[in-house]
Amino acid sequence: MKQFISVNDVPDLPLLLKTALDLKAEPFADKHLGENKMLGLIFFNPSLRTRLSTQKAAVNLGMQVMVMNAGQDGWALETEDGVLMNGNKAEHIKEAAAVMGRYCDILGVRSFPELLDKERDYSEHVIKQFIKYSGVPIISLESGTLHPLQSFADLITITESGIKKPKVVLTWAPHIRALPQAVPNSFVQWMGVADVDFTITNPKGYELESSFTKNVKIEYDQEKALENANFIYVKNWSAYNDYGKILTDGKEWMLTEEKLKNAAKSKIMHCLPVRRGLELSDEILDGPRSLVLDQAENRVFAAQAVLKSILSIL
Amino acid sequence: MKQFISVNDVPDLPLLLKTALDLKAEPFADKHLGENKMLGLIFFNPSLRTRLSTQKAAVNLGMQVMVMNAGQDGWALETEDGVLMNGNKAEHIKEAAAVMGRYCDILGVRSFPELLDKERDYSEHVIKQFIKYSGVPIISLESGTLHPLQSFADLITITESGIKKPKVVLTWAPHIRALPQAVPNSFVQWMGVADVDFTITNPKGYELESSFTKNVKIEYDQEKALENANFIYVKNWSAYNDYGKILTDGKEWMLTEEKLKNAAKSKIMHCLPVRRGLELSDEILDGPRSLVLDQAENRVFAAQAVLKSILSIL
Amino acid sequence: MKQFISVNDVPDLPLLLKTALDLKAEPFADKHLGENKMLGLIFFNPSLRTRLSTQKAAVNLGMQVMVMNAGQDGWALETEDGVLMNGNKAEHIKEAAAVMGRYCDILGVRSFPELLDKERDYSEHVIKQFIKYSGVPIISLESGTLHPLQSFADLITITESGIKKPKVVLTWAPHIRALPQAVPNSFVQWMGVADVDFTITNPKGYELESSFTKNVKIEYDQEKALENANFIYVKNWSAYNDYGKILTDGKEWMLTEEKLKNAAKSKIMHCLPVRRGLELSDEILDGPRSLVLDQAENRVFAAQAVLKSILSIL
Repeated sequence: MKQFISVNDVPDLPLLLKTALDLKAEPFADKHLGENKMLGLIFFNPSLRTRLSTQKAAVNLGMQVMVMNAGQDGWALETEDGVLMNGNKAEHIKEAAAVMGRYCDILGVRSFPELLDKERDYSEHVIKQFIKYSGVPIISLESGTLHPLQSFADLITITESGIKKPKVVLTWAPHIRALPQAVPNSFVQWMGVADVDFTITNPKGYELESSFTKNVKIEYDQEKALENANFIYVKNWSAYNDYGKILTDGKEWMLTEEKLKNAAKSKIMHCLPVRRGLELSDEILDGPRSLVLDQAENRVFAAQAVLKSILSIL
Repeated sequence: MKQFISVNDVPDLPLLLKTALDLKAEPFADKHLGENKMLGLIFFNPSLRTRLSTQKAAVNLGMQVMVMNAGQDGWALETEDGVLMNGNKAEHIKEAAAVMGRYCDILGVRSFPELLDKERDYSEHVIKQFIKYSGVPIISLESGTLHPLQSFADLITITESGIKKPKVVLTWAPHIRALPQAVPNSFVQWMGVADVDFTITNPKGYELESSFTKNVKIEYDQEKALENANFIYVKNWSAYNDYGKILTDGKEWMLTEEKLKNAAKSKIMHCLPVRRGLELSDEILDGPRSLVLDQAENRVFAAQAVLKSILSIL
Repeated sequence: MKQFISVNDVPDLPLLLKTALDLKAEPFADKHLGENKMLGLIFFNPSLRTRLSTQKAAVNLGMQVMVMNAGQDGWALETEDGVLMNGNKAEHIKEAAAVMGRYCDILGVRSFPELLDKERDYSEHVIKQFIKYSGVPIISLESGTLHPLQSFADLITITESGIKKPKVVLTWAPHIRALPQAVPNSFVQWMGVADVDFTITNPKGYELESSFTKNVKIEYDQEKALENANFIYVKNWSAYNDYGKILTDGKEWMLTEEKLKNAAKSKIMHCLPVRRGLELSDEILDGPRSLVLDQAENRVFAAQAVLKSILSIL
């Protein structure tokens, strides 16, 4: 694999999935592969799971890791082309990406969207400049529109259940802040290539970008959507069409045990961080339905499989 | 050892002390023990000695280390149970602790008290939630009420002197900020199980929590307390009874050479950071009495002995 | 080598240069040298290249690295002697340096000048206190007046060209902020001991401190200075005489292709970060003349040669 920006970069998904499960069984079996290889991680935004799980994955493979918080450890970076740099940004992403590419064999980049300008965010200009200028394979640690390491970990988690063609429902949840569409977009993409029966449910107005959802069932009645679900993925996102807006407080969309009366065996998923009492009830998060910690744990093996695959072509 | 939150977690203190001294003599002798083991360090507050000495200790044992500054690298964490999370805290400590426990074999946690609510601080709710939810052994890197790695390093330093049953005096010192009671509480605890003649001296009103001091001599006359001391531990703390308050500027309590006329051979200890000219005079810190750098150095071997002991049960 | 603060610390520059080029050819050949050795890096200011290249260099040699952002990860440090520490600085550099020296075998320190007080900045009080109190070899990661790792990397880059006695021109460039003289001072020092034909060109008033420039050609006519140059080093600095001031916007000093009509084969150098459109045109930075990424890459081997030399005397 040459890069990992979306599911489309994966040449053989069943193989990658098998690699992840094998690594989970024997995390240190490939420790020689990363010898003398350096992974650089650059964060334009906060991170707990991604930061730690990707480090752990690299270390499991015998790699070294260097972590940078952009604009905090280093310089504020200019990302626009052709500008006169006379503001408060001291370095252009062209140089920063190229320099990091000279120091690292693989780079991971986290850069959230600003949610102000749809075209700009969906152009993925930050991660694309890293791809263009760094000269090394790039791994998305969540970009403006996608979070493939999360979705891969989610798929690992679903696969581990052993249920054949499970019913998977992605349900919108309320939140007090406008959040990116990266996690839901990405989850939809990965469910599209997995052997699952997939449905999205969200309040009207919260439709995701149509290229992601063109072959996907959308059911606006949450209760109906949840019926007999095996996996319910709970996640907030801000509106795509009325870009970056919160259209409703949507409190009636918070998932509770009461809503699961027709989905008795359903497992509940969330990418974390989760707002307790707002997105998901304490009873669900603290109960036996919750897979959120397994998802978080699988982030290690998702990242490790991706790194292993990229290391094999270096 | 299953965790290291206070001296009460140590099953065999003489053995742990011997381990530390052996490791100081041969720091790399046990480098195989930490192979494929990950230490996670999470800091809710600043740290120099603890941050670096604990990393060094882990590396000496062949462990890997990941360091997080909570709320800076990651998300602001909610620590209250059962709240509706609609404020500025994006993640609950329940998830954060549990996730870190999936990535790390041992976790170290630093969390200072807020000094606003005695019951809350003394309930140790932050470190207790890490113990409850992380699923892995927890090491205190200074909690609301205790700083056991510091006290253990202090005991190593006193032990290295070879003096039998030394007289040890903990003396309050002035400061411009309200500081936690963690270092003095903890030092009192450790002196309570060491073979020393121990006295506390402080201005009236600065009595520590009584369960710590119940069998300890308290002498309000500093000069009298210092007489013939072998070791004088200088430290500021804010009031416990009038919780978190600075009751007096207490300038007359600053330790100077002049005050040591009846303690000619006494060595001076401080956990650092120290305010020169406020807590301790330059002449003492820069003179031959000072053990502050030996204490700091012994932080490595305190942490290394603790990690070694915990690794042995993993 | 006992420390690396300036070119004057290098006992045998041709040997150090050869070491760097050998390490560039075989970066991992000396991986055993750093076993059980700890490098500590302390940053009082932002850093991208220095932070990452020095870590990479240490790892290439098998060392371990700990990184501290002073005042962010740890405590704000007092650097004045003999003060009553009753302000917002919690720890004195005397203790911080000495403690870090107990944890690390070698320390790297970055500390920019404040550009308010010439005597203070040029006294190099921060790095000198690390030298005085840490007890271990100190490497400058850019100090108040010098940036020797950068200059060494620059010399490696010039040497790689194979041109005998090349003409090297240091040209002042405009900037919107007052920048230190460290990079130009240091470059002048290193060019002074290299086999090059060296000229400085800058607007009147921007003369560097005279002890650096006493045997150096200064040509105030930029066009004339650039004629037939093999290497043109572009860099802004604030005034030394009218200390720390920006005397002119100097827009006419920005280097463009048009200015290189009499220096057709010249290569362009810059230490980065560079302000595009202000210090250097996009056409030059993105064109074949630019060596800026090679300079950045050579930072690894400059640091690695320095570390190797220091490791050999530990």
